[in-house]
Amino acid sequence: MEAVVVKVSGSLVYPPRKEYVGRLVEEIARIHESGTRVAVVVGGGPLAREYIRVLRELGANQSLQDLAGIMSSRLNAYFLSSLLYPLSPLRVPERVEEVLEIIATGRIPVAGGFEPGQSTNAVALIIAEAIGASRVFNLLNRVEGVYDRHPQAPGARLLDEITLSKLEEIVSSYEQEAGKYALIDHMAVEIARRSRITIHFIDGSDPGNLYKAFRGERIGTIVVPG
Amino acid sequence: MEAVVVKVSGSLVYPPRKEYVGRLVEEIARIHESGTRVAVVVGGGPLAREYIRVLRELGANQSLQDLAGIMSSRLNAYFLSSLLYPLSPLRVPERVEEVLEIIATGRIPVAGGFEPGQSTNAVALIIAEAIGASRVFNLLNRVEGVYDRHPQAPGARLLDEITLSKLEEIVSSYEQEAGKYALIDHMAVEIARRSRITIHFIDGSDPGNLYKAFRGERIGTIVVPG
Amino acid sequence: MEAVVVKVSGSLVYPPRKEYVGRLVEEIARIHESGTRVAVVVGGGPLAREYIRVLRELGANQSLQDLAGIMSSRLNAYFLSSLLYPLSPLRVPERVEEVLEIIATGRIPVAGGFEPGQSTNAVALIIAEAIGASRVFNLLNRVEGVYDRHPQAPGARLLDEITLSKLEEIVSSYEQEAGKYALIDHMAVEIARRSRITIHFIDGSDPGNLYKAFRGERIGTIVVPG
Amino acid sequence: MEAVVVKVSGSLVYPPRKEYVGRLVEEIARIHESGTRVAVVVGGGPLAREYIRVLRELGANQSLQDLAGIMSSRLNAYFLSSLLYPLSPLRVPERVEEVLEIIATGRIPVAGGFEPGQSTNAVALIIAEAIGASRVFNLLNRVEGVYDRHPQAPGARLLDEITLSKLEEIVSSYEQEAGKYALIDHMAVEIARRSRITIHFIDGSDPGNLYKAFRGERIGTIVVPG
Amino acid sequence: MEAVVVKVSGSLVYPPRKEYVGRLVEEIARIHESGTRVAVVVGGGPLAREYIRVLRELGANQSLQDLAGIMSSRLNAYFLSSLLYPLSPLRVPERVEEVLEIIATGRIPVAGGFEPGQSTNAVALIIAEAIGASRVFNLLNRVEGVYDRHPQAPGARLLDEITLSKLEEIVSSYEQEAGKYALIDHMAVEIARRSRITIHFIDGSDPGNLYKAFRGERIGTIVVPG
Amino acid sequence: MEAVVVKVSGSLVYPPRKEYVGRLVEEIARIHESGTRVAVVVGGGPLAREYIRVLRELGANQSLQDLAGIMSSRLNAYFLSSLLYPLSPLRVPERVEEVLEIIATGRIPVAGGFEPGQSTNAVALIIAEAIGASRVFNLLNRVEGVYDRHPQAPGARLLDEITLSKLEEIVSSYEQEAGKYALIDHMAVEIARRSRITIHFIDGSDPGNLYKAFRGERIGTIVVPG
Repeated sequence: MEAVVVKVSGSLVYPPRKEYVGRLVEEIARIHESGTRVAVVVGGGPLAREYIRVLRELGANQSLQDLAGIMSSRLNAYFLSSLLYPLSPLRVPERVEEVLEIIATGRIPVAGGFEPGQSTNAVALIIAEAIGASRVFNLLNRVEGVYDRHPQAPGARLLDEITLSKLEEIVSSYEQEAGKYALIDHMAVEIARRSRITIHFIDGSDPGNLYKAFRGERIGTIVVPG
Repeated sequence: MEAVVVKVSGSLVYPPRKEYVGRLVEEIARIHESGTRVAVVVGGGPLAREYIRVLRELGANQSLQDLAGIMSSRLNAYFLSSLLYPLSPLRVPERVEEVLEIIATGRIPVAGGFEPGQSTNAVALIIAEAIGASRVFNLLNRVEGVYDRHPQAPGARLLDEITLSKLEEIVSSYEQEAGKYALIDHMAVEIARRSRITIHFIDGSDPGNLYKAFRGERIGTIVVPG
Repeated sequence: MEAVVVKVSGSLVYPPRKEYVGRLVEEIARIHESGTRVAVVVGGGPLAREYIRVLRELGANQSLQDLAGIMSSRLNAYFLSSLLYPLSPLRVPERVEEVLEIIATGRIPVAGGFEPGQSTNAVALIIAEAIGASRVFNLLNRVEGVYDRHPQAPGARLLDEITLSKLEEIVSSYEQEAGKYALIDHMAVEIARRSRITIHFIDGSDPGNLYKAFRGERIGTIVVPG
Repeated sequence: MEAVVVKVSGSLVYPPRKEYVGRLVEEIARIHESGTRVAVVVGGGPLAREYIRVLRELGANQSLQDLAGIMSSRLNAYFLSSLLYPLSPLRVPERVEEVLEIIATGRIPVAGGFEPGQSTNAVALIIAEAIGASRVFNLLNRVEGVYDRHPQAPGARLLDEITLSKLEEIVSSYEQEAGKYALIDHMAVEIARRSRITIHFIDGSDPGNLYKAFRGERIGTIVVPG
Repeated sequence: MEAVVVKVSGSLVYPPRKEYVGRLVEEIARIHESGTRVAVVVGGGPLAREYIRVLRELGANQSLQDLAGIMSSRLNAYFLSSLLYPLSPLRVPERVEEVLEIIATGRIPVAGGFEPGQSTNAVALIIAEAIGASRVFNLLNRVEGVYDRHPQAPGARLLDEITLSKLEEIVSSYEQEAGKYALIDHMAVEIARRSRITIHFIDGSDPGNLYKAFRGERIGTIVVPG
Repeated sequence: MEAVVVKVSGSLVYPPRKEYVGRLVEEIARIHESGTRVAVVVGGGPLAREYIRVLRELGANQSLQDLAGIMSSRLNAYFLSSLLYPLSPLRVPERVEEVLEIIATGRIPVAGGFEPGQSTNAVALIIAEAIGASRVFNLLNRVEGVYDRHPQAPGARLLDEITLSKLEEIVSSYEQEAGKYALIDHMAVEIARRSRITIHFIDGSDPGNLYKAFRGERIGTIVVPG
């Protein structure tokens, strides 16, 4: 039985919009009901950033900042869980063993972050590897996929399919420009590489794109191991 | 040794403002360091209301709505905990036994909600009763205390000291007008009455008011059992 | 799929009688096997009252008294669980999220109390709301249902069907007489009202009455929202 | 720092009597305050026996019967904990690691049973060994100590001091007579022997006897390894 | 539905050998798939003995030594669990209630030790009794079963079928010789006796023997209650 | 108050040697007693590698392999904990929040791994950042520190002090040669950099080196942020 991971940008979940989240959980349930095992990972988004900013300004260390981001992402995850219940347990898994337990009982785990020092992108890959998923769908907010340079840079061109190495190269060039635009972190890349997992970046602001990508339509950007 | 409970309106914590929360945790720490046992309870505020509204619109039952509010209040509580750490454990207590355990080891519990069907005001009283606190400080957001009618009604007059019965009467008249303005719920009143706990409503938007009220200054409104 | 809650008076469970509890769990299993989701809530009864009395006499606060009652009700609940096992997990759920998890995996949660300041009647309603039950069966011990005055008062008449408001009125008149005869508390009423849940009081000392009430026979007293 | 274990017969705790339990917890606290580490273990007593009898009559297996006894003993333990709080945590430890954690933070663990197939006498020895206690005080209910034959047999003589081997011999002769009179089980004996722990049986129905035995007065029966 | 327990000697699992453990988990899965409920218990073996020896040499008490052995056996159990996953949960149950929960959800619990003062042989019997198993298969490492004297003694003869009493007698004669050769402990015997459980000792170094014994072939030694 | 982290190579702990581990825990206790907060992280070493190898040979995925390594490292950590008890809790923390809780109560956390996809070196840095440690002592087994090329390569020269960037460069050159010799991973480097933490590599096979490095002696290799 196939397994997939759906990574949802935190900015798609909070502030919550009725039509959007309603359709998003329908699309996730649809994949689940097709007989594929699905796990969901949600980011912290703007909610996380507000708490983090104030903690930083008040001198909290990097670890406490990250933890506040993780807790925020778990609230976003809880919110999706309660919309998916009883397909999902209400409890948000806080580590990969809990995810494996939920999957083993035929339900949809919805996780937020796991630990300081890693992004929810890394969590998506950690989970993908654990549950034997060969595909991660990464739902961006109003971005079509990966571009050959910063998406807002003039002449930026959407890429159909690239390798992980190419993605790393592009991301590191972004970072020299902008510092914050994080499609992926090093741990996510490493896991994708060692377990040969494909990451499919799509514009998640249209929930219908998820099922399209799941069925194999060529939208967004596919990042293949290599 | 005296014990007190500080109930903080969720709207004072999220969206977070650096100067405000910085001073608030200082004032809480100051009471703790004076040798008084302190427990803190934080509401869900606007953060909770956003998730709840969407859940309601999507047809989630009342219990799931309340649970989303509880989870939101716990994120607010976590945020204050991480600012108080190591005076507070990072872990937000989820029931009264956990609060008693934290108090017994000389630290400051920071709770959010406990359970569907009760407000964080009720949680503040449940905790007050458990830890033997005879005073609850209820920090409102830009409201001076309890008024003889709805605070925005013409001619509304701030009350110095009233009984619980009088408070119930006023609150139920508010509710006929506005439906949503909840200073207190029935469970909170009942516990305050049976264990003779005073509730001191103050304007928490100035953090200095907390220590003033703690020392016995006559600001805001004192609600005495009866 | 329908869901119902069965609230069992603690005095029906302890001291335990073989024939009675044997038949009671059969009736509960029968409802479960008919395809209806069932949750059970058990009170503390005389077991709770003994510990509580001594705690009060020794000066323990109201919260510690309530907690001893909760722990007693959980022992009663554990006892029924172990008779229902494997239809029930052995573990007694201690909050509503745990109840939802057990229900989601197709089993029968058997809870006792949850928290100081609320009765197991309130717990029954909290659970009913959470699992989407529209009916709560409240099994009394040798009382047929709700009477128009105190059941032992001369001329007391059993009522077929009343509204929640009428129930509140009757209960508060009882309390003026007797102080202790608690059919329901304020929190239970509030939840029944907001989620439109019917409470069916029956004489639980005959276990057969449960299935009769479940099938819709007009025994005992039906309390409808309103 | 010395460590001791106090084993309390369940029949001394339930049904609870105000004067007795009040004094008992004072005596325990007194030992704790003298600078000795104390752990308490409480039996299930008559409370346990009632649930067990009905489970047996209804055909529950031996393991479920034992578990009901363990749960009952934990309720008795919880009751003493709540009287000792904050010297004791409210939470009843359910295994030896939890006991070690409570002891390491300077408090009094109050345990009931641990596991099917062993008595609370064995639990007392397991804990004694873990916390490095060389003495277990075993509080009997209206029995002065160990007799050379069944205490109610004609000519029975109270023994001052015996070896473990002698105790085993006496107990096994009791069992041929009465089947139920269990001063100790095999596991308890084995642990006492391997870790050289003295068991001091005293009449616990007078709480003052505990402190007397603790100070070294020759009351009851001392059972020495050997 | 029948239930059985498989007790695996720790020396069969660590140091791990690919072919062996691969086949062992296949045989366990085969019994499970035949519709029989299976629980597995793994010993600590040489892994445990190394840690224990050093703890003893450094003066750690007997309880801490036993706990290190328990932790080692749980690592062995985790290893088998991860090979059985998703038939087994990854989480190693640490007490009998957790075993009952796993069995109730149709999966294979794989436990190590439970508590100081008892062997993993006792754990196997505790679990057998709890899940209603009438047979325990005890997989020895390169020993065919139970002999009439120490297996390495000259003239030792393998026994087909004996009673528990005979087993106790033989084991105690072994101990006078060797001190360490522990086929069974007193607690295991007691539970086997009270719940009439058969223990089937076989040479587990050939994994095929497990299924043979399960089907009723007369290999090794069968120990019947009595 | 200063805080430090001690990272111990798994090969120093298992197979355990009495003299070595005895002295190691003394040195750790000595730092603790000097008033510095200490956390310890232990690797999986050869114990982990055995289980991992067999899991890989049997086709388990990378995540299950990593988890077996984590569980092994936790057994090593448990072993050191039980030697440090009561300075350490027996419970091995499984995430950074648990470490912060142990530190806040004045004790020594002893962790193993946390999560698939990261080494125990990364865990040491995650913990250092969380507890505000500016120094991590990395105890190698019979290696003096970091060399300018592979330590066994001809002409390899021990380096006194280098930057993180230099370390990365050296490690990646090692990897081209040997694939397995992992002084550090990318996540560890990133955290050391963002929180400006110094990593001091020393030969841990002489436990005395730890205290020397702690006092500031120039042994081994110091890796400074940059």
